[in-house]
Amino acid sequence: MSSPVGQIDIRRHNSALVLATVAASPGVSRAGIAERTGLTKTTVSMLVERLLSADVLTETGRQHPAPARGRPATALDLSPTGPHGLGVEIGVDRLALCLTDLAGRVRTYRTLPGDHRGGRGADPARVLERVRGAVRRELGRAAAAGVPVSGVVLAVPGLVEAATGTVRAAPNLGWRDVRLPAVLGGLPVSAANEADLAACAELWTGGHPGLRDFLYVSGEIGVGAGLVVDGALFPGSHGFAGEIGHVCVDPTDAGARCRCGARGCLETVAGREALQRAAGVATGELGPRLAAGDARAVGAVRAAGRLLGTALASVVNAVGVPAVVLGGDYARLEPWLRPPLEGELAARVLTARWSPVPVLPGTLGREAPARGAAQSATRATLADPEAYVAARRDQPTRASPSPSSLRR
Amino acid sequence: MSSPVGQIDIRRHNSALVLATVAASPGVSRAGIAERTGLTKTTVSMLVERLLSADVLTETGRQHPAPARGRPATALDLSPTGPHGLGVEIGVDRLALCLTDLAGRVRTYRTLPGDHRGGRGADPARVLERVRGAVRRELGRAAAAGVPVSGVVLAVPGLVEAATGTVRAAPNLGWRDVRLPAVLGGLPVSAANEADLAACAELWTGGHPGLRDFLYVSGEIGVGAGLVVDGALFPGSHGFAGEIGHVCVDPTDAGARCRCGARGCLETVAGREALQRAAGVATGELGPRLAAGDARAVGAVRAAGRLLGTALASVVNAVGVPAVVLGGDYARLEPWLRPPLEGELAARVLTARWSPVPVLPGTLGREAPARGAAQSATRATLADPEAYVAARRDQPTRASPSPSSLRR
Repeated sequence: MSSPVGQIDIRRHNSALVLATVAASPGVSRAGIAERTGLTKTTVSMLVERLLSADVLTETGRQHPAPARGRPATALDLSPTGPHGLGVEIGVDRLALCLTDLAGRVRTYRTLPGDHRGGRGADPARVLERVRGAVRRELGRAAAAGVPVSGVVLAVPGLVEAATGTVRAAPNLGWRDVRLPAVLGGLPVSAANEADLAACAELWTGGHPGLRDFLYVSGEIGVGAGLVVDGALFPGSHGFAGEIGHVCVDPTDAGARCRCGARGCLETVAGREALQRAAGVATGELGPRLAAGDARAVGAVRAAGRLLGTALASVVNAVGVPAVVLGGDYARLEPWLRPPLEGELAARVLTARWSPVPVLPGTLGREAPARGAAQSATRATLADPEAYVAARRDQPTRASPSPSSLRR
Repeated sequence: MSSPVGQIDIRRHNSALVLATVAASPGVSRAGIAERTGLTKTTVSMLVERLLSADVLTETGRQHPAPARGRPATALDLSPTGPHGLGVEIGVDRLALCLTDLAGRVRTYRTLPGDHRGGRGADPARVLERVRGAVRRELGRAAAAGVPVSGVVLAVPGLVEAATGTVRAAPNLGWRDVRLPAVLGGLPVSAANEADLAACAELWTGGHPGLRDFLYVSGEIGVGAGLVVDGALFPGSHGFAGEIGHVCVDPTDAGARCRCGARGCLETVAGREALQRAAGVATGELGPRLAAGDARAVGAVRAAGRLLGTALASVVNAVGVPAVVLGGDYARLEPWLRPPLEGELAARVLTARWSPVPVLPGTLGREAPARGAAQSATRATLADPEAYVAARRDQPTRASPSPSSLRR
């Protein structure tokens, strides 16, 4: 009924299956892979050899405990010197670059401060030129250290159309219909929303293991969100879910004008700048003031927390999500935000009576978006290792598989 | 690798496959089914005979056009006298009962007015006693007409926990933790949220063919919603998505108190009673006043439309859904609601600049919830016809398959 599958497609599929088995059971042997996958030992051995020769897999010694009969088998693991992913967060106030290995471990994380706000002379072309330079330097460092990189994923604070690689709107950057580069430093590039990627990072390696259904809320200059349902990102029909910074919390004409053009958006009362204004502090001063118990600062964060809670309760009622994770600035503000936020959720969420909505601090801090981006790049390699193996044969120092779109 | 599959499981699976093939291609022949499914002609013939003998399928004559060679094959179709589904909407102001055949055609639709509002003496037990009586009478009529019924699905304006058959909360009914009957008139019962079922009815048989991604908004005494993503209901993590009646549109202390206990919920300004109050009309008067151009009525609906638009824009930004379908009272109010609603969506939805969010009237009117419920019951039979066939053999007049949960 279906079209015939060629030799190469089968190898591609089986290679990914072998790699996924090692990722799920580090230290597994060839025989163990055969047992778990139903592939023959000969096929497994052939595929493992290919993955070893491309340094995607590595042999980590003899299996413990040794099997009862026969010689002990060789344990396999993802190679820590295998293909890495480079994640780049294009923030409103900085760039962040993160390099992770196949297991999702962070090798390097670096930030480069900058002012990328719309209307401050930082037009898209200039910001993208900065990105280009930063990526080139990062790849140069990686090459010097002998670390192969397989792909780049950009995290953007806005609505990213994955199919065309276009930022349709990023109000705080002042971007509209900006085409992202398809290749950087010779590597394929894909892109996604920064809160979505941060949510993925929390899901994949965060400090709340077992948490598979949550709304990740990222509060920085803008306020974004990523919705995780049953262990996977929910992208919405066209990949544009999560714009909770534009949930309306003041529908009257008194609502402040938002950068998106509308009035009364959550961002205008709970974004970083609004918080600083309400607290009467400059950039970087809010944390220390709160820690010192400054009444105005505490009051400002509490008031924002109530409106954030109102907005989140609306979203929780609409999409039925059982937990909230606070990311970005909100993770640091969590001790002050949580009480008013939980109060609003308890009062407004219909399911809260029998199933209270916990508010949890994000565990990856501001690293989450770049980290999620880097892991997305390595996960693309895990999903199709043959593309990496083949590209590496052509060009031994820098391989270029094709990271599939994050949005499905 | 997987556990062995017995003869009965295979027949169950193949029987559903055969039936799905007929449902997708009415008039198909046995040979056509074999071709489309990859099953042998012998297997198809055996399964078709079983389904014919249980009146799930019917032969509708010779196929047209006749095949070039050999004798013309017999065309098969879903039997119009086969198992029907009974949907029962437990509304705040009525019961509605709908009987549909396997193809989703409505055989009967009946409403029984009533006042089921919480705090008016209509406690859950009394309302459920009404439901029991109405179902008994409906099944009696069906039996007298020789119409077999395979299951009952209840549509409830609240949060329904499918696994336990419990209404956790239905503020407008005043219900809390109400256990629904598992059996009515000898038939298995399942239940779901009424807006979700109405959304499914629009998806399955509504007048907007091809519309596979939308937010169905049902405005009656309460305001609910069903979210349809890629042709399937999105139930949220625990099946409680869609409670947009409790999106907050007035976070100040001036917000009206909602039946849910919170303040400023959308329902308090855009529910039926709020609209009637603002328009200064009694039940049933709003439509005629609007048609007559009454300024206060028109103004009231416009003002509600703006706040409905604000709330919907928040939801659309949060979940990324590309169209809105107006159901319940809102379908009839659509000419007056749509302009302010579209205005708010255009101003507030971030994706609207390149992808405006159309606002469409629901095409099934107030029949949608009961119809969706009835179709859910017949779709359960389509998904597992062998259960119906087996039950019918035991008890020829009334069969009882087990409708699987709607939520998934």
